[in-house]
Amino acid sequence: MLRESETGAGCFGGHRVGIVGGGQLARMLLEASVPMGVDVRVLSADAAEGAGRVARDTLTGSWRHEGDLLRLAEGCDVVTFDHELTPGELLASLEHASTPLAPTAATMRVASDKTAQRMAAAECGLRVPPWFAAGDTSSLRRAVAHLGFPAVVKLISGGYDGRGVRWLRDRGDLDRFISQGDLGPSGALVEPALPITAELATQVARRADGERVVYPVVRTVQHDGICTTVTAPAATTPALAREAQRGAVALAELLDHVGVLAVEYFVVDGSLMFNELAPRPHNSGHYTIDACTTSQFENHLRAVLGWPLGDPSMTVSAAVMANIIGTGDRLTPLSRMALPPGTRVHLYGKHPAPGRKLGHVTSCGNDRVTLTQLATETADHLAGIGRPAMTTASGEVAP
Amino acid sequence: MLRESETGAGCFGGHRVGIVGGGQLARMLLEASVPMGVDVRVLSADAAEGAGRVARDTLTGSWRHEGDLLRLAEGCDVVTFDHELTPGELLASLEHASTPLAPTAATMRVASDKTAQRMAAAECGLRVPPWFAAGDTSSLRRAVAHLGFPAVVKLISGGYDGRGVRWLRDRGDLDRFISQGDLGPSGALVEPALPITAELATQVARRADGERVVYPVVRTVQHDGICTTVTAPAATTPALAREAQRGAVALAELLDHVGVLAVEYFVVDGSLMFNELAPRPHNSGHYTIDACTTSQFENHLRAVLGWPLGDPSMTVSAAVMANIIGTGDRLTPLSRMALPPGTRVHLYGKHPAPGRKLGHVTSCGNDRVTLTQLATETADHLAGIGRPAMTTASGEVAP
Repeated sequence: MLRESETGAGCFGGHRVGIVGGGQLARMLLEASVPMGVDVRVLSADAAEGAGRVARDTLTGSWRHEGDLLRLAEGCDVVTFDHELTPGELLASLEHASTPLAPTAATMRVASDKTAQRMAAAECGLRVPPWFAAGDTSSLRRAVAHLGFPAVVKLISGGYDGRGVRWLRDRGDLDRFISQGDLGPSGALVEPALPITAELATQVARRADGERVVYPVVRTVQHDGICTTVTAPAATTPALAREAQRGAVALAELLDHVGVLAVEYFVVDGSLMFNELAPRPHNSGHYTIDACTTSQFENHLRAVLGWPLGDPSMTVSAAVMANIIGTGDRLTPLSRMALPPGTRVHLYGKHPAPGRKLGHVTSCGNDRVTLTQLATETADHLAGIGRPAMTTASGEVAP
Repeated sequence: MLRESETGAGCFGGHRVGIVGGGQLARMLLEASVPMGVDVRVLSADAAEGAGRVARDTLTGSWRHEGDLLRLAEGCDVVTFDHELTPGELLASLEHASTPLAPTAATMRVASDKTAQRMAAAECGLRVPPWFAAGDTSSLRRAVAHLGFPAVVKLISGGYDGRGVRWLRDRGDLDRFISQGDLGPSGALVEPALPITAELATQVARRADGERVVYPVVRTVQHDGICTTVTAPAATTPALAREAQRGAVALAELLDHVGVLAVEYFVVDGSLMFNELAPRPHNSGHYTIDACTTSQFENHLRAVLGWPLGDPSMTVSAAVMANIIGTGDRLTPLSRMALPPGTRVHLYGKHPAPGRKLGHVTSCGNDRVTLTQLATETADHLAGIGRPAMTTASGEVAP
């Protein structure tokens, strides 16, 4: 049936994946690893939070320290990431150790730089927003003078969940921004405020040998730069959906990406415009846990291990994911929350704090409007806002 | 929003569930606990297998030792079980410790005794097979003389997966059975060979306060006493399905059960007959992970914690689960297996051995015949029998 050297592989502890970072993505990767029979080792700053709280094999340490990264890699078959913050020089030295990185340091370099992302997207034939790179105050002023107000400034590296994005409505905003010295070490992109009518996203999972699967195109909604809901599939035209998937595949090929690649788009004047990408499972794909045969987390592990990829198609007609975003230092306990039909909660085991993503809710069914209401009200109630969507027990089917 | 004493409960490590046993049920409970933000402690004989391999908090020890059980209970909010083997006297002393058991020792006593199960079923108005209890050789001979051949002998306690069940086709079988001294410490049931046309099952999740949800009725197929496939929902009459659910709810009420209760039935002469029950998540409900909003594992945890129960309804039209039953000392590695559409694999992290349940496969979709073929061929190929259902990568939706 198989060669002696392969016994055990994939069936009884034959593989160990190292993950740099211990947040919710690592936690959901860990959850996906259980039925796969794959062992996971997590490098986390806090063994009481997120993935660190649930991982059997947690290495307490930092992605800023070479020694910790090398200890993580030791004894793992492959090392992957739950964020793009690891400095390039540390990735390079990790790559000189014997454990392969997936994605590679070269891919991570592009993925952690918004200007490099946009050049790659343009090379793939995707429309990109007009932009200027500003490395210092004077180039920032020149860019804004050229674009006019309002303008948007985005850190080239290290921004996430609305952090690192700033709207400049007028000269006062610009002066304040400059006086706060927020340009960051790698500078910022400056772009005009675009007439965005929708935001779309999709995920590709790709192996080193080029095998790949593409997830459906979803619609994402952001408030203050932080994703609030994701609707799958997006109510968009087949042509836009096809272009979004084609662009994501082209980017994965160009970057020689291994793992899940998430690509986010704007819709401007009825056509697609590249926004940004992430070389890992992404908030826009969390719905796949409950709504697709194979979640983005399982397919990320399959891809980095070089296993055949799983079917990404949806098993339900529609799904809406709503993020649980902290409003204070506590959540409404699940012990007191009746859940509406078709609805599941995913908590990340993080200390509640205002603005922090603490979990998500997925509602599956048929009607996107109803699903949006169920998922949003449930997430808001968990976060401490408003009333639950339903207060009675659900799903009773017996007499 | 909530009283100070409740902060953290259900959102950040406020609850810890202890599980007696470290097999696949504990492993899948652990998987379900991650998005719930619930901590799990497992009492397992082997920290390198099953749940022990993935649990952050594994206590290596035995359900046969009072000290180990008490150490498990310490610091847990509730203790539950992945099997019914714990001796009654140890359950009684555990119950005298401060941590509640769910299900209780009284429920476990009924659940671990096939004669008590049948008396409970009869009390709930369910038809039960004709049976005799045989505590010794002479009562066994009398029972068989009364019933004639073929007869079936089932251990009253401790049997599972076909172990503890013996067909007696003739006097030679009877003499061999008696000479092997296989009656066990609690004796056996003797019943006639029934003209069974189908086997059905369902699961109820019930909380201490009586809130409950009922899962759809499924059809199970056994070979040599071990479950091979489960089809959900069962292609049966609405009347039989209603009676199966009604009976399961009545049993959960009668036993004052807390957690998931699985009830298995025979169909004989077109009507339902109680077979047996299990006071925990059960093989007949593994399909719920991929096919229902809330899996039996999440609802078992919700029930034993006293949380509101989740929606048990199916999110897909149909699902077929096929067990991966070992044929030797290895499995076909997942690294070499392309999976067909709609199909997911769940491995248990157990050492492969012939006849051992090593995992299961679930295929979700519309047509039960196709799903049965996909799930069975995938499970068989993993176990080392035959060819895979598909050899190409699945689910490619992009150009």
